[in-house]
Amino acid sequence: MYSSYLFLRNDLPETIENNGNEDQPKIRKPDSSLGLTNLPIELSRRALQKKDFILTIMVVGKSGLGKSTLINSMFLTDICEYVASIAPKTVSIEAKSVSLRENGINLLLTIVDTPGFGDSIDNTNCLIPIIEFLEKQHDNHLKLELGHSTPVCDLRVHCCLYFIQPTGHSLKPLDIQFMKTLSNKVNIIPVIAKADTLTPEERTEFKTQIMKDITENDIKIYEFPNLLGDIEEYKQNKLFKSKVPFAVMGANTVIEINGKKVRARKYAWGTAEVENLEHCDFVALKSMLLHKHLQDVIDVTDNVFYLDYKRNKLAQILSSCNVFESKLFCRIQNKENSEEQIEIKTE
Amino acid sequence: MYSSYLFLRNDLPETIENNGNEDQPKIRKPDSSLGLTNLPIELSRRALQKKDFILTIMVVGKSGLGKSTLINSMFLTDICEYVASIAPKTVSIEAKSVSLRENGINLLLTIVDTPGFGDSIDNTNCLIPIIEFLEKQHDNHLKLELGHSTPVCDLRVHCCLYFIQPTGHSLKPLDIQFMKTLSNKVNIIPVIAKADTLTPEERTEFKTQIMKDITENDIKIYEFPNLLGDIEEYKQNKLFKSKVPFAVMGANTVIEINGKKVRARKYAWGTAEVENLEHCDFVALKSMLLHKHLQDVIDVTDNVFYLDYKRNKLAQILSSCNVFESKLFCRIQNKENSEEQIEIKTE
Repeated sequence: MYSSYLFLRNDLPETIENNGNEDQPKIRKPDSSLGLTNLPIELSRRALQKKDFILTIMVVGKSGLGKSTLINSMFLTDICEYVASIAPKTVSIEAKSVSLRENGINLLLTIVDTPGFGDSIDNTNCLIPIIEFLEKQHDNHLKLELGHSTPVCDLRVHCCLYFIQPTGHSLKPLDIQFMKTLSNKVNIIPVIAKADTLTPEERTEFKTQIMKDITENDIKIYEFPNLLGDIEEYKQNKLFKSKVPFAVMGANTVIEINGKKVRARKYAWGTAEVENLEHCDFVALKSMLLHKHLQDVIDVTDNVFYLDYKRNKLAQILSSCNVFESKLFCRIQNKENSEEQIEIKTE
Repeated sequence: MYSSYLFLRNDLPETIENNGNEDQPKIRKPDSSLGLTNLPIELSRRALQKKDFILTIMVVGKSGLGKSTLINSMFLTDICEYVASIAPKTVSIEAKSVSLRENGINLLLTIVDTPGFGDSIDNTNCLIPIIEFLEKQHDNHLKLELGHSTPVCDLRVHCCLYFIQPTGHSLKPLDIQFMKTLSNKVNIIPVIAKADTLTPEERTEFKTQIMKDITENDIKIYEFPNLLGDIEEYKQNKLFKSKVPFAVMGANTVIEINGKKVRARKYAWGTAEVENLEHCDFVALKSMLLHKHLQDVIDVTDNVFYLDYKRNKLAQILSSCNVFESKLFCRIQNKENSEEQIEIKTE
């Protein structure tokens, strides 16, 4: 909880002494305490009282990259299930919600799946339904804010896990197009799917190549907030950053290893454990998303992506209002003119 | 070599006694031996003398499925190499030849690679360069046969290894389109790429699903010849058939295990050996293609696919000749008529 205090601290006004520079506005010191110093503590207390979290995660990637398995492994529940079928010709959007409760804290989790993404022969239009869905959610929320509709389930997507095929080569054109187009609409967290097919050396090399492709193509992925003041936090954030893109794997089977039940994949040559940091980055991704930066992905969605949408939309509405207003003004003036003419006639 | 005798035996005339049925043509028994019984032995002897084989393999599949690595593992040489680059927008065709020699037997191996296949956002036209390449090779050979050109390297493709992504789900639309379209032009051998990402249970299930998709979509894949007479051969063929589609993996690294150097992939949880039949079907694919049915894929290419092409092409040429002939006939007749007219005039 210290972290939320630290994060919020950035937004607090700082008490700077006016050091004789006349250009700077004078900062007045109140005569008695306004209690401002108490604000961070109060916010921290409220945060501690907050027991309900709403998290919406979108998973995108070609079929067969283990999206459902990863999500099920992450939330230790069977939210997603795969239904055998030849890939559909268009991308569909499927949302499934589940309420998770642990030690009195509730998490309303929604998984937005995008079956059919990248599976067609021609994938030119497969981003359209995804963009439409993201904007529709912002739109619903804006209508609610403006009092134009009754509350509906808030499905604004807080982060998008983008699954990269474990080729060991480089990003493919569709990966680049997706991340580039969507990165100003949602927090994108790239993950290397089915990483148990890459040896440690291949994994390191592939990660370097992907980050190079991301930089060269000006793709903005989700950046962890820089938490100030805490060395431990800083170290952990650095560790998280070094793991991006997270090389993950999931498993639907639970196996007993040394008397402990673990999610793992049993091959003829050994057992790959999902929650073993030496085997993959699953734990790092889970810890980053659920334990450390859950509130941040929600805040960024609200303060950056939703705000952007709202500004653009309101500007549009305003401009169309202006057009309407000026048309109305013209009509009124025309009417007045004709009335004047009529008056002249009757005179 | 016994197998080639058995295979050829099917083509030999059988000495059937005429059993009184007048509709059937009488089969005459020659007075003295014509030496026909010696033919199979002679063919077998010639086969034994044959020491040069020409084999052209095409590899098709999305980038990053381990095509180059598999081929290098199969021929124990570095024929193919991967060059890091973002996938090209069109499919290109690259052929590389290498002469392999073992115990006095030569194999001129050509690998035809198809980089860019299935890697674009829109893959509608990615079959075209492949079809053009296959037909061009038949065309070159036909021109040579007809004496229209000097000998060039015979690059008729004897088999096409089609790499299926190890999704564990089902075939994708592009897989179906490729195999369906190409199966009447080349021997298609489907393989499940990077099979070290599937557990044994998943592998069995995936193979069943793929064979179901192949049957339901009327796809003709390469069928092993039914060799007669040899129980051992029959058993082995049955084993090969049960492995289709071969679940394979390759490795560029050689690791020492129990004092033996093996191609393998070293993971944190164990080492997956390429040539271990419990780990994958690599050995079965290699044995089927190189040791058992190499001559058959060549024969089928010659006797089925090339013959088909030749018949169609010659029919086309003949029909255009007929058009030309009839046009010529018309012109000659017209000329004769006009000459007649001239004759009439001068009279």
